[in-house]
Amino acid sequence: MKKLLLIAILIYGTAMASDHQQSHYSPKLLSQVKQLRDYALNDMLAYELTESLTTEVGARLAGSEGDAKAVAWAKAKFNLLGFDRVTLEPVTFRRWVRGEETAEIISPYQQPLTITALGQSTPTPKEGITGQVIHFSTLEELKTANPEEIKGKITFISNRMERHKDGSGYGTAVAARSSAAQVTAAKGGIGTLIRSIGTDNNRTPHTGVMNHDDNISTVPAGALSNPDADLLVNILKRDQAVILRFTLGSDFDGEYTSYNVIGDMLGSEQPDEYIIIGGHLDSWDLGTGAIDDASGCAITMATAKLIKEHIGQPKRTIRVILWANEEYGLSGAKAYYEAHQGEMKQHILGGESDFGAGNIYAFGTRIDNKALPLINDILNLLKPLGIDYAGNQSFSGADLTPLREAGMAVFSLAQDGTEYFDYHHTANDTLDKIDPQKLAQNVAAWVVVTALVANTTENFGFNLQDSE
Amino acid sequence: MKKLLLIAILIYGTAMASDHQQSHYSPKLLSQVKQLRDYALNDMLAYELTESLTTEVGARLAGSEGDAKAVAWAKAKFNLLGFDRVTLEPVTFRRWVRGEETAEIISPYQQPLTITALGQSTPTPKEGITGQVIHFSTLEELKTANPEEIKGKITFISNRMERHKDGSGYGTAVAARSSAAQVTAAKGGIGTLIRSIGTDNNRTPHTGVMNHDDNISTVPAGALSNPDADLLVNILKRDQAVILRFTLGSDFDGEYTSYNVIGDMLGSEQPDEYIIIGGHLDSWDLGTGAIDDASGCAITMATAKLIKEHIGQPKRTIRVILWANEEYGLSGAKAYYEAHQGEMKQHILGGESDFGAGNIYAFGTRIDNKALPLINDILNLLKPLGIDYAGNQSFSGADLTPLREAGMAVFSLAQDGTEYFDYHHTANDTLDKIDPQKLAQNVAAWVVVTALVANTTENFGFNLQDSE
Repeated sequence: MKKLLLIAILIYGTAMASDHQQSHYSPKLLSQVKQLRDYALNDMLAYELTESLTTEVGARLAGSEGDAKAVAWAKAKFNLLGFDRVTLEPVTFRRWVRGEETAEIISPYQQPLTITALGQSTPTPKEGITGQVIHFSTLEELKTANPEEIKGKITFISNRMERHKDGSGYGTAVAARSSAAQVTAAKGGIGTLIRSIGTDNNRTPHTGVMNHDDNISTVPAGALSNPDADLLVNILKRDQAVILRFTLGSDFDGEYTSYNVIGDMLGSEQPDEYIIIGGHLDSWDLGTGAIDDASGCAITMATAKLIKEHIGQPKRTIRVILWANEEYGLSGAKAYYEAHQGEMKQHILGGESDFGAGNIYAFGTRIDNKALPLINDILNLLKPLGIDYAGNQSFSGADLTPLREAGMAVFSLAQDGTEYFDYHHTANDTLDKIDPQKLAQNVAAWVVVTALVANTTENFGFNLQDSE
Repeated sequence: MKKLLLIAILIYGTAMASDHQQSHYSPKLLSQVKQLRDYALNDMLAYELTESLTTEVGARLAGSEGDAKAVAWAKAKFNLLGFDRVTLEPVTFRRWVRGEETAEIISPYQQPLTITALGQSTPTPKEGITGQVIHFSTLEELKTANPEEIKGKITFISNRMERHKDGSGYGTAVAARSSAAQVTAAKGGIGTLIRSIGTDNNRTPHTGVMNHDDNISTVPAGALSNPDADLLVNILKRDQAVILRFTLGSDFDGEYTSYNVIGDMLGSEQPDEYIIIGGHLDSWDLGTGAIDDASGCAITMATAKLIKEHIGQPKRTIRVILWANEEYGLSGAKAYYEAHQGEMKQHILGGESDFGAGNIYAFGTRIDNKALPLINDILNLLKPLGIDYAGNQSFSGADLTPLREAGMAVFSLAQDGTEYFDYHHTANDTLDKIDPQKLAQNVAAWVVVTALVANTTENFGFNLQDSE
């Protein structure tokens, strides 16, 4: 059904464009955007920005020294790139820090294990937690288990994430990461381990946030690398009690104020109307945050810079937001909404790049149906990049959630995520995972959408609940 | 020229087989071997042995607790598999132990680095070595550099290993690992780092032995993972002094006695003549030593067991040697030769499996030219497995070096090593890297060679210097 609807929309769109021979954008603009799109395919600015952030700053866990360095980096880069206005908006959150991380099987076979704490995990005692491991294939199995089986034990969920181009294996698998600690605590367990939420076979465990609420009891929680999880499963198959010890030093540590770093290319006609683009500036601490999300910051910074340089001042303001603490709090997203909730109607359309640096293959929207004709020219210009329409049910990036929920229209440019979860949230998230050609294709696509939307004064719909 | 020679030999071989319609092996034996070859393609014994050694013992660095466990494991398995004679032959060597390992760039950008000590590296002081990094693209560059440039600095060699099916990129790249520390010391440097000798892009550095001689000065030496080496290169490109600190706790630590564990399937006619097969029992300590070299041990143990079980007692003794401390001393190889040098002429033919678990694609020999007709039937039976002849210049495995140099004829079954150096000597050398089907293809090939050679009383040549 969804597919049929999509086809219907596509046919409708094409009909609008070809039958009426009319466009919502000037021929000159369309020609300029086409030229810039093709120029962007060979431009290295986004790669240079990605290289710069990962090399000169590196890991930038929210609340760490790297966070402050990243903020300074972003401010300086926006200025260097000629943004008209650069703003630092404070974002305060509860800081979480990683500490020592060790794990080993004690019996029946001594084996060291590779482990990393889940984000927001509480610490173990210094000497670690030692206990028998009880194995569940899925979170559901753990949820339905008898508490008597779990009391005093370490739970272990071995669910394996599936590889898909659109990353859809993540949503299924990640529930274990989110909830294992609270479910384990509720049943009297003393700690929990999960198989990493990732598609690789490397000894590089995947961190990522877990649920934490001061009012809900929890246990220390870590992810084993996938080969380590395999090893543990194989030992558990031998039907002997498996005793394991792990130590996590991670803990909350006071409050910290970071910043959403905002670069505006001001509009000539409606400077107070915004097309919102960006990525998140923070990263997990294990790698240098190349695909998550230096690339997203770089793609969108380069997009605004190229438009200003090659097409000139847009009618509306192009606002690039480099979001603070996406990873364990969506803190920047929440703070921005609080600070700007009175201006929501000026937020015309928003998108975020936060799924690596693979080629973009689909453009999705969540706009008023009446505004759909506005995207025909966008689709025509995206087509030669290998990008098709993905329908009008887009949710865009996580950092846009508060704005989308407040009614802002959004779009997404879906990246090929086949390999994304090999490296996501691991020490392996480094610059070498990025193909400069693919990164440039991303910029070309972002240029098309951003330049057209910033150069029309038409609207894309607001408060979409009404139009659904 | 080599290729022409190879073709000539192949034509000669085929001519021998087809024109004369004669065989050096009985039709019954050939039929039995063919049947067993096909059976082995679906047999899981080698995989089960690999799983058992990596799961129940895991890492087994020579001189470690894992070494002793592996020796006990091997003795027990040989007995369980019905070997006629199981012998532990002592192998004494200078033990080397790994310690703490840390590295970080201090300026111009603070970045933690992933490092591992090279085997036989001496330790740094406890507080580490801090110094300016001086970059060389190759070992040759370092060798020709002015000592004034190097004095008081940390050298860094960034040569990148190439990926080839036959692993030939290793020989070119590994010289940096072997010699960097001694060359650096000779020129007054204080430490050395190399880009890992590996073809992957993982944050899992590759260890491996370096040259050590108490009479030649040296410096502490480590390998950076490949993404870390890339990062360092990118920082060095910025033309600012790069200051780095690294700490290695590795050191020599007394003497240790391990064992070559030898399983014999005794011959009925010439029990004192041996076909030597095997792998090395020790591994590096970072992974569980699955492809290096649990698989080699398992392939050859399974080969002897399947032959005895399905074809019966061989005419000559099939001797499976699980060699001690291959990785940082070839200690087992040397000890075996010393203990058996009076029996060299009874060592009819030898091979070692020590290149992972990829499909075998070539069979090579180093036998007397007069014995070449003996391999026609072997080649005919290997052909359906996708295995061609690789000529008569084989060097076989490292553990056979003393025996080969003493005159023993050798063979090799060359494995596809395209991915081998992604994992070799890293934490990533784990069971999941092994495809059970490919492992079974290995056993099928080893069965063909071993069963035929063990069931003829003809010779393959000795002291080949004369026949070259």
